[in-house]
Amino acid sequence: MSLDKTWYTEEWAGQGSAISLKIKDKVHDEQSPYQRIEIYETETFGTLMTLDGLVMVTDRDNFMYHEMMSHPALFTHPDPKRVLVIGGGDCGTLHEVLKHPSVELAEQVELDERVTRVAEKFFPELCESNNDSRARLHFADGIKWVADAKPGSYDVIIVDSTDPVGPAAGLFSETFYKNCLKALRPNGVVVGQSESPLFHADLIRSVQKSFKAAGFRDVATLFFPQCTYPSGWWSATMACKQGSVAQFRAQDSAAKGFATRYYNHEIHAAALARPEFLR
Amino acid sequence: MSLDKTWYTEEWAGQGSAISLKIKDKVHDEQSPYQRIEIYETETFGTLMTLDGLVMVTDRDNFMYHEMMSHPALFTHPDPKRVLVIGGGDCGTLHEVLKHPSVELAEQVELDERVTRVAEKFFPELCESNNDSRARLHFADGIKWVADAKPGSYDVIIVDSTDPVGPAAGLFSETFYKNCLKALRPNGVVVGQSESPLFHADLIRSVQKSFKAAGFRDVATLFFPQCTYPSGWWSATMACKQGSVAQFRAQDSAAKGFATRYYNHEIHAAALARPEFLR
Repeated sequence: MSLDKTWYTEEWAGQGSAISLKIKDKVHDEQSPYQRIEIYETETFGTLMTLDGLVMVTDRDNFMYHEMMSHPALFTHPDPKRVLVIGGGDCGTLHEVLKHPSVELAEQVELDERVTRVAEKFFPELCESNNDSRARLHFADGIKWVADAKPGSYDVIIVDSTDPVGPAAGLFSETFYKNCLKALRPNGVVVGQSESPLFHADLIRSVQKSFKAAGFRDVATLFFPQCTYPSGWWSATMACKQGSVAQFRAQDSAAKGFATRYYNHEIHAAALARPEFLR
Repeated sequence: MSLDKTWYTEEWAGQGSAISLKIKDKVHDEQSPYQRIEIYETETFGTLMTLDGLVMVTDRDNFMYHEMMSHPALFTHPDPKRVLVIGGGDCGTLHEVLKHPSVELAEQVELDERVTRVAEKFFPELCESNNDSRARLHFADGIKWVADAKPGSYDVIIVDSTDPVGPAAGLFSETFYKNCLKALRPNGVVVGQSESPLFHADLIRSVQKSFKAAGFRDVATLFFPQCTYPSGWWSATMACKQGSVAQFRAQDSAAKGFATRYYNHEIHAAALARPEFLR
């Protein structure tokens, strides 16, 4: 079959493959100073946001990504109080972070304010913690923000970025990771999205190597499903200044006292298991 | 973008979504007595087989499915000697089963001989164990085969079926599972593919319930990525006559002595972790 214009299609660059979502309507289309932001209503995935034609968020499956970008790192840190989210303009990661009662400050540094303003309108459930008194939304360059941060500013840094091309490329560099190390307090943990294990295994290995080279003590990758991202399988790579990233507050996680849809303490441990081809 | 005829597209039925693979050539097309069998050469997924227009196997990603359909069940059984594969006409599961030195007999019962003959031609690496002296290929109705089997014939039964519609629907029924129970020896283990956790959570719950109702002692679902199947996330549900399906020969698995690309003992344990929405 051929797919007509009632479908939104993302061709997975260089992978000879594509995902398509059946569209009811395009409800928003703007060119921000940084990128093209489009919002569609889909038939079965709810609302869809794309940036420069690439899927960022759908109502139906964003929970896996947002939960796995936040809870493993926060349950790895012994007592996360100050959290920085780089990127993450749809605010879904921030929303998960603020479920942790230990968190006193959650700063989000997104380059493109329009992404957040559009998300507030079309993804209100992801943005419902934006007015939490612990939340601070900044619209600025995350690379510069971390470089300029006072040493020991944060317990956890979450790099919720787009693909490693264009402005986000610097978020996958050893220099950036060194600045993260400096910006973290002694027990600090950093996690960054690291693309598809099936399509980008080399990138995952390179991110792991760069975290180590930057001086992090231990590094591990989390693996999880994400239907609407390339290959349907995604990863986040986590590193810590001290101790081991395989250790986490499993008892606290098991008694977390807040709702999730994908994450739990068993999933946390399971996500750390390395497929044979990545060992 | 719209996708033209240089793409093979599978619309995921009822899910308003689709996957597409860029095609270089269609190299085979036949109508067997049971279904339409097509083979394509893709740009980046190697050879692709479809049955009635649905993706069955690609060179690039079949390893995850075939390994997870076989090794967890075989490492759950204490000493698997006699194994039955229902369906599995591409022979990839059989190939994995025969990697276990304890296996003395591996019988495959596929309805459509043409699937196997076409696989032998286009997926030779999946079929390279077909001439193993322990392998027996039968072309017959798997439902009837299990119903007619002498009680206590098998240690492990693997239901490597297509979707639960048409001839495969009976492979998801309590009656079939009861016949599996009877056909298994006391330590017997059965595993069947159980569709996408994101798209078919109700089916997974129903399969779990039916295994229990059929008299199996313990049931658990394995979760794993599978890029070219609906949602990119797949499952297999496993049940045992005795003991617990969470127990497996982890030490034997860790020292398995044969090559895999996805499966290992950590992945085995990890695959049993239940996402929060399925607890």
